[in-house]
Amino acid sequence: MRFCPSCGAAVELRRPEGDDRDRHVCTACGTVHYHNPKIVVGSVCTLGDRLLLCRRAIPPRAGFWTIPAGYLELGETAEEGARREAWEEARARIEIQGLLAVYSVKRIDQVQLLYRARLLDENVAPGPESLEVRLVGWSEIPWDSLAFPTVDWILRRALELRGLPWPQAVASNPEERQPEPIPGEGAI
Amino acid sequence: MRFCPSCGAAVELRRPEGDDRDRHVCTACGTVHYHNPKIVVGSVCTLGDRLLLCRRAIPPRAGFWTIPAGYLELGETAEEGARREAWEEARARIEIQGLLAVYSVKRIDQVQLLYRARLLDENVAPGPESLEVRLVGWSEIPWDSLAFPTVDWILRRALELRGLPWPQAVASNPEERQPEPIPGEGAI
Repeated sequence: MRFCPSCGAAVELRRPEGDDRDRHVCTACGTVHYHNPKIVVGSVCTLGDRLLLCRRAIPPRAGFWTIPAGYLELGETAEEGARREAWEEARARIEIQGLLAVYSVKRIDQVQLLYRARLLDENVAPGPESLEVRLVGWSEIPWDSLAFPTVDWILRRALELRGLPWPQAVASNPEERQPEPIPGEGAI
Repeated sequence: MRFCPSCGAAVELRRPEGDDRDRHVCTACGTVHYHNPKIVVGSVCTLGDRLLLCRRAIPPRAGFWTIPAGYLELGETAEEGARREAWEEARARIEIQGLLAVYSVKRIDQVQLLYRARLLDENVAPGPESLEVRLVGWSEIPWDSLAFPTVDWILRRALELRGLPWPQAVASNPEERQPEPIPGEGAI
């Protein structure tokens, strides 16, 4: 960041009063611009004994296999984002069953929320970011052709838990409610 | 956003080719600027039969009670962020035990990752954003003076699970490793 998104003047890196790290601060309007990690949401989607994999059509790692996943957008819950990504990348309709893993990838400032989900039917098809999509058996996972380390991690995790009673210890919003508004909310 | 953080020219809201929603796009350099939800990390910290609460010194909801929580910073794992917030707000040293809840607050574009944690000792003290901090019994939670709805949700959740064997179904990074670098990574 070199210029203030609010007023267009130059920004400088400096430590605001009371802060413990440098921030981009506008030299004209004084606005402090914070940068934070982004959330990736994705799902291991199963139908009976098969799971859904997508072959990437776009860089990075075009041609390699992944699960439907992508950046959470504004105005979505994490589960809504995971359902949207399953549709966008594999034209898959899914029911989220619970959270499997939270992986933090510091180097690229991502936190990945990866869910277990059930495909509602076997009608899947590649979306614009996939070359092909497949429902594969657990013994057919192309371990040497996976797109990202966290895809390897989550598939091993899902494989470990396959067939086990799976305790869902992590709560999500109660009854998918949104919390009541609070005056001045947005900071915590 | 009115100006491009990269080059300082005006941005406009338009739909980039292949995208399905409007983005801020620079009218001069063409950079697409994405905006995404932010991650809040926090912990329900216990020591024996007591839990840690902080009374907020700053708006919103100054004077009301909360758990140590705040925005995840660049370069942190979610667990590191939760430990930092416990230190900043309550001078508490904690050990993260597992994830209790993931709450999505769409209105303010937050996803909150709230952990269960153990206080390593009872030496706690208010940090600059707290008026006071207290170790309270479960029957002493000030339900009518909590700062945010999600604080109410998570304390009810922790209360429900208190004393129960608590299945930790959600994985984090295996052995706190960081995944191996991937050329061109940063998109998924």
